[in-house]
Amino acid sequence: MKKFTAIREECCEANRALPNTGLVDLTFGNVSVLDAAAGVFAIKPSGVAYAKLKPADMVLVDLDGKIVAGQLRPSSDAPTHRILFRAFSGVRSIVHTHSRHAVAFAQAAREIPNLGTTHADYFDGPVPLTRALTPAEIARDYEGETGNVIVERFRNLNPLDVPAALVRHHGVFVWGISAAKALETAQALEAIAQMALWTLQLRPAAPPIPTALHKKHFRRKHGPAAYYGQKANRL
Amino acid sequence: MKKFTAIREECCEANRALPNTGLVDLTFGNVSVLDAAAGVFAIKPSGVAYAKLKPADMVLVDLDGKIVAGQLRPSSDAPTHRILFRAFSGVRSIVHTHSRHAVAFAQAAREIPNLGTTHADYFDGPVPLTRALTPAEIARDYEGETGNVIVERFRNLNPLDVPAALVRHHGVFVWGISAAKALETAQALEAIAQMALWTLQLRPAAPPIPTALHKKHFRRKHGPAAYYGQKANRL
Amino acid sequence: MKKFTAIREECCEANRALPNTGLVDLTFGNVSVLDAAAGVFAIKPSGVAYAKLKPADMVLVDLDGKIVAGQLRPSSDAPTHRILFRAFSGVRSIVHTHSRHAVAFAQAAREIPNLGTTHADYFDGPVPLTRALTPAEIARDYEGETGNVIVERFRNLNPLDVPAALVRHHGVFVWGISAAKALETAQALEAIAQMALWTLQLRPAAPPIPTALHKKHFRRKHGPAAYYGQKANRL
Amino acid sequence: MKKFTAIREECCEANRALPNTGLVDLTFGNVSVLDAAAGVFAIKPSGVAYAKLKPADMVLVDLDGKIVAGQLRPSSDAPTHRILFRAFSGVRSIVHTHSRHAVAFAQAAREIPNLGTTHADYFDGPVPLTRALTPAEIARDYEGETGNVIVERFRNLNPLDVPAALVRHHGVFVWGISAAKALETAQALEAIAQMALWTLQLRPAAPPIPTALHKKHFRRKHGPAAYYGQKANRL
Repeated sequence: MKKFTAIREECCEANRALPNTGLVDLTFGNVSVLDAAAGVFAIKPSGVAYAKLKPADMVLVDLDGKIVAGQLRPSSDAPTHRILFRAFSGVRSIVHTHSRHAVAFAQAAREIPNLGTTHADYFDGPVPLTRALTPAEIARDYEGETGNVIVERFRNLNPLDVPAALVRHHGVFVWGISAAKALETAQALEAIAQMALWTLQLRPAAPPIPTALHKKHFRRKHGPAAYYGQKANRL
Repeated sequence: MKKFTAIREECCEANRALPNTGLVDLTFGNVSVLDAAAGVFAIKPSGVAYAKLKPADMVLVDLDGKIVAGQLRPSSDAPTHRILFRAFSGVRSIVHTHSRHAVAFAQAAREIPNLGTTHADYFDGPVPLTRALTPAEIARDYEGETGNVIVERFRNLNPLDVPAALVRHHGVFVWGISAAKALETAQALEAIAQMALWTLQLRPAAPPIPTALHKKHFRRKHGPAAYYGQKANRL
Repeated sequence: MKKFTAIREECCEANRALPNTGLVDLTFGNVSVLDAAAGVFAIKPSGVAYAKLKPADMVLVDLDGKIVAGQLRPSSDAPTHRILFRAFSGVRSIVHTHSRHAVAFAQAAREIPNLGTTHADYFDGPVPLTRALTPAEIARDYEGETGNVIVERFRNLNPLDVPAALVRHHGVFVWGISAAKALETAQALEAIAQMALWTLQLRPAAPPIPTALHKKHFRRKHGPAAYYGQKANRL
Repeated sequence: MKKFTAIREECCEANRALPNTGLVDLTFGNVSVLDAAAGVFAIKPSGVAYAKLKPADMVLVDLDGKIVAGQLRPSSDAPTHRILFRAFSGVRSIVHTHSRHAVAFAQAAREIPNLGTTHADYFDGPVPLTRALTPAEIARDYEGETGNVIVERFRNLNPLDVPAALVRHHGVFVWGISAAKALETAQALEAIAQMALWTLQLRPAAPPIPTALHKKHFRRKHGPAAYYGQKANRL
């Protein structure tokens, strides 16, 4: 039987790193990592303290939601991760947090506007907000439907260019091509949410970054013309 | 004579943990633990630095307010703890803090509205606010009457479903079935107070979380249909 | 020649503790300690990093402003300390900081209102704000006149019951019967300033704490009827 | 061939210190140091983690933008540093950060007003804001034009008396006569931005510091009549 050692280790390391990022309180956060060829992802077990996690504790789940291996229950958010992996081709890792400033935007039902170059370095536009789930959706399959409203919101967006969503009344899901990159984006997201809150306090009708500046910054870091960082490390 | 070693140790450990939670400044906070069968609780001594506390320093008080054992004075808030233990069946531990965001709501005389799933994971509704004490109540038995106005506020609430109160102009009391759980809830309370402040700054009339979502989250973690965490650890 | 070893050591220890309190940035803060019988105080040398301070570096200044001993220049704020020691009988130590929330009130020219019991535990009323210095006062003796406007503001206040002042456009001076107590009050001051800011954001016209509650809390900790803490340590 | 060891080491040390200042998230910041006689500056390589930097990793660039030595690409902001070194005589080191409160002012397109003595100790007036770049400027030479709009904004200002600029929608550039001094000013800038935000929340129309007080504080620390700090260390 296949052991999926690589994704268990990448997943465990990223989950253990979560508390040091300042993005999670208590056990409010989890990371998953996909083996795309096998259609299996590793995810944090539910309600376990981060510091105690070992690679063998990671729960393996396939893209139909079946638990492939693991003694513990997976994160209760596993169905959301599963829906996103199925829908968002190229995404290899997903981070879920209740990072505090991003949650404030989600609770206020406001997208995070693109107000500056820090934002533009990571997101090709505002960080989108999902619609509210209906009572029927909540009753039927709450965590799965949470994934579905994210996918619905991205119908006209490229998830690799806008690698995060605010889930209304809840928190954030962030993704990327590796757990390290998804974690980095989750940290950038919280920083831009904080700076956006303060910017809006200083100027409630602050205009977004001009398009030319936004595109310049995004393309400095992404795509064929990128020139930020060292060639070997560019993503 | 009975030593009450278990509650002294649980109480001491939780009090020593307080400063690391970021919930207390200086000596503004205390934890108590009840031995329900004996009708005796252990509580922090008044005005002593947390780092120096030993289990033997914990003061033992019975439910009539008599000091059973201890060389030091109990926390000046001991009568409040006593009233709550008498009124709230099933509560085994109480945490009192002046955690800063929660105090801001108490000073502003606003309940903490239930704005998202982080709140709903811990509280089955807004965090209630007590009425002001009358000058006569303050003069008669200030700390005991503080307990009484909390109990009064909970006349139509289940304290195990809403395990905290904001005391107007003062701070918070949080409770649970163990010191660890009460401390966890005190940390969650401060986090949701902070997120609520920012949410209200972004949208002063932010609506509460829809009822279906609120109930879903609360019941994911509490009661017979809970499925969050590992079965062995579920509370 | 007298060495003033005790006040040099108490002063050095408190100055070295300043950065760990979070109250000072860079070198924006200093502590002094008075030997009242000798009419001499020890104070931090100007612009020296806290971590490098040794008791021998403390500068000794008499109440006429003459440097009694010390190889280094005293803090440029020494004349302010001197004026306060002369005017405020019973004060043995003074702490000056630019702690950030307190500065915000000083820059906004607002007193810190007494909004709750945390405030009432330390201050018998709002934290007062000085008037602006005139250009002539600034030109004549800036640091001495800073002390004079504090003293002027306290004409009808007892400095031991209200042990701090906000200096308009500048920062705070806090005092007490020992360096440890003055430092504790400086920490409490910053905490109440932060909580007051948030309270006013949640309720711009937040009323002050009712008088009966304010007096109860202040007298629980101060004066002949105090019952907070252990008798041996009560101040 | 000249090794430029001194500026490489000064530059490396300052870049390594950046994360501990709390001024940078992820890799959003860089420091450069000029050898004015040689017309060559050392600068951080692009996108490399601070903790891994060694003096040999610093990239050497001349004032025409030619890379003199270094295996790695220089910071993508190197052209901005180059323009500033050419224009601002006496500046030996430049720090670029996205420190969060300063960014909020830059995103809100507001200068940081001079509200108190902490500000006046470092800046002889408000911290200026650049105009927006035109799309043509962004397309032509984005990083170089960023330097040009800073220089344009300082046409009537002395950069040694006002040693920082807010770049609209972006972040801050701070400078000084050494990397240590520029870093210190960058820390002071973030502190005053935070205090200014809170001051404006407490009093939206807060007046600036009176001129006499501002000049007094600035001249206490700068110029021929300075008396703050110890003579040997005064800048």
